[in-house]
Amino acid sequence: MQSFLEETKTYQEVPFTWPKGYKADGVHVGLRKNPNKKDMGWLYSEVPAQAAGTYTTNQFQAAPTKLTKQTINQDHLLQGMVMNTAVANSVTGEQGMIDAKKMQKLAADKMGIDANLVGVASTGVIGENLPMDLIQKGVSQLELLDNDLVTEAILTTDTHPKTISTQIEIDGKTVTISGFCKGSGMIHPKMATMLGFVVTDAKIADGQLQPMLSQQVDKTFNQITVDGDTSTNDMVVTLANGMADNTSISIDDGDNFEKFTDAYNAVLTKLAQDIAEDGEGSTKLVEVNVENAATHADAQKVAKAIVGSNLVKAAIFGEDANWGRIIAAIGQTDAVVDIDHTSVWLNDLPLVDNSHSADFDETVMKEALTDKKITVLVDLNSGTATGQAWGCDLTYNYVRINATYRS
Amino acid sequence: MQSFLEETKTYQEVPFTWPKGYKADGVHVGLRKNPNKKDMGWLYSEVPAQAAGTYTTNQFQAAPTKLTKQTINQDHLLQGMVMNTAVANSVTGEQGMIDAKKMQKLAADKMGIDANLVGVASTGVIGENLPMDLIQKGVSQLELLDNDLVTEAILTTDTHPKTISTQIEIDGKTVTISGFCKGSGMIHPKMATMLGFVVTDAKIADGQLQPMLSQQVDKTFNQITVDGDTSTNDMVVTLANGMADNTSISIDDGDNFEKFTDAYNAVLTKLAQDIAEDGEGSTKLVEVNVENAATHADAQKVAKAIVGSNLVKAAIFGEDANWGRIIAAIGQTDAVVDIDHTSVWLNDLPLVDNSHSADFDETVMKEALTDKKITVLVDLNSGTATGQAWGCDLTYNYVRINATYRS
Repeated sequence: MQSFLEETKTYQEVPFTWPKGYKADGVHVGLRKNPNKKDMGWLYSEVPAQAAGTYTTNQFQAAPTKLTKQTINQDHLLQGMVMNTAVANSVTGEQGMIDAKKMQKLAADKMGIDANLVGVASTGVIGENLPMDLIQKGVSQLELLDNDLVTEAILTTDTHPKTISTQIEIDGKTVTISGFCKGSGMIHPKMATMLGFVVTDAKIADGQLQPMLSQQVDKTFNQITVDGDTSTNDMVVTLANGMADNTSISIDDGDNFEKFTDAYNAVLTKLAQDIAEDGEGSTKLVEVNVENAATHADAQKVAKAIVGSNLVKAAIFGEDANWGRIIAAIGQTDAVVDIDHTSVWLNDLPLVDNSHSADFDETVMKEALTDKKITVLVDLNSGTATGQAWGCDLTYNYVRINATYRS
Repeated sequence: MQSFLEETKTYQEVPFTWPKGYKADGVHVGLRKNPNKKDMGWLYSEVPAQAAGTYTTNQFQAAPTKLTKQTINQDHLLQGMVMNTAVANSVTGEQGMIDAKKMQKLAADKMGIDANLVGVASTGVIGENLPMDLIQKGVSQLELLDNDLVTEAILTTDTHPKTISTQIEIDGKTVTISGFCKGSGMIHPKMATMLGFVVTDAKIADGQLQPMLSQQVDKTFNQITVDGDTSTNDMVVTLANGMADNTSISIDDGDNFEKFTDAYNAVLTKLAQDIAEDGEGSTKLVEVNVENAATHADAQKVAKAIVGSNLVKAAIFGEDANWGRIIAAIGQTDAVVDIDHTSVWLNDLPLVDNSHSADFDETVMKEALTDKKITVLVDLNSGTATGQAWGCDLTYNYVRINATYRS
């Protein structure tokens, strides 16, 4: 069965690079013990950039998350972001907000810009206060450089940086979109995911960056799950500084808008997949495509229920084609399901045929399950809508990492 | 802090015994390979009993679950139940219903009663057909005895039978309520849990058994979670055969009704706790009590979110007082939460004090976490309602069991 997702690309994926006008840096200042782990970083645009953000829906929203949201909402402009790992500055009361604002001010002063133009992001253990002496020291060591060390500086239990750059041509001008993020655990975004940053030199028409981000986040970051837990520090921030000097991109201008949206979607999709694939303890990326659903929302819900099922995840880790768990996960949702004509494929092999076992060869299926990427395709036979979600398997290492996280 | 749950008991817990007029049996017939594992069983009442049931909300409801629901709904009477383990007879199409009905008829014939008085329950792998030759052989071996082997015969990955009996006096007559169930995995009931059976010799006023069961299930079985997955075969069935010859119990008769409800609630609560405590791979029972919530629904939601969090569960397995995860789980819900004045205790030790770390001694807390039962108490400071939920820790063994379930 052919995936419904293959289309002609109008963008090019290129090695990670900063779009025009962006500088960054990352340092190790001692927030984490391992001297090889960068633990503070920042990002800077030569001119103020249009900014948009999506933030966790967890009621215990962390101080840096609140502060960044407030800062962006003032005038939808940012010129810099400063980030740290190891300490989330979450559930830290008034002191938390004082510390977040101090971190914002320190970075702004060093960048030589107004504090109102700087966002702050923290990730790590909840409930501990930021060690402000180290934060101050870290900011003093950061420089405006061309390196990509900030993509390392935001990681926690991630095993590698997650980055991507895409480029398009708009009326003869090259526009670059670059994204990086961290993920790994407490990943079940309802608004955004842990920390994600997407920067572009595109010029975007006023007021159109936020709806574009929100729409794409719903299709990408909000469709991944590692463990069903929504973080207090979730945040995706996007900056567009206009330095590509392209004709301004607007929803009223169909072709360029679509081209940009495709390239932008590719960045968010890649980052979302990276987070799922590098979920804590993960050995396999699981992608679920749902088709012939009654509505897009139904398709998204079913896809997410499957990648979110501990039992499905453990079976995939065990390379066991236990399709009853996929069916049980589908049936747990309130999506419209044709319960007598639901079919499932695993890596293109028929697994369930019209709600009956598809008489598959267990040996062939077992072999397919050794792949590093497992694709599940579900046909709900209830309409024409499609949806997608990503997750990972549930492994001994997930338990180990989370049984010993603070030690 | 004193638990809000301590009250004077009006019932007595006694060693497991069948109420008046009930017979049962369990055999090994070969559905499971291990000859020491009973795999078929039944239950019989000398006279038709009032019957009520609650069933899975999973859209892929298994054939035996559908059949039992239909049978009970006809006239709310049952005289027998026949059960098997190893094969769930779920997602088995028309053949599944034919097999379930045949199993019902075989048992009814052997019991010498009408098939319309027999319920059927199956549990095990989804998607496989019942081996009817073995089912037939099993029924031929079952007898009407006083043993409790049926409580073993329904188990899958459970490590031990889950049983309880309570007794009360109603106007000089002894009334017995006995329950048994299986649980272990795919436990996140939205209606009932895997398989639970509660039988009593009480006489209950017409039409009052079903509302009593439904109400108690909401407070007990529906408040446990092992892994967030809702089974296709969930069912709780209760029988009341009236053979205790007590004054009929009715909601209009306050004292006796309350006494019976307390004893009935004790049975369901114990079974629910047993399932949580014996969740797949579990090493610890986790009980969460929520108080000062705006509504009972809020309290139940918050309690279940905490016991349902993989991260909280893994931290408890690791005996790590990572309270940020408890706070994050609370904040994920839409319950009314006073985010600046939420407090948490672990085994009576202050952990979070008004949304700040309670300055606890890590060594003392670590010691408390070595207990086999972990009690989390949450004060939401938002009202006066309370709620409870039960779960277990997330361990390497959960992953092992579920990576290899079909092998």
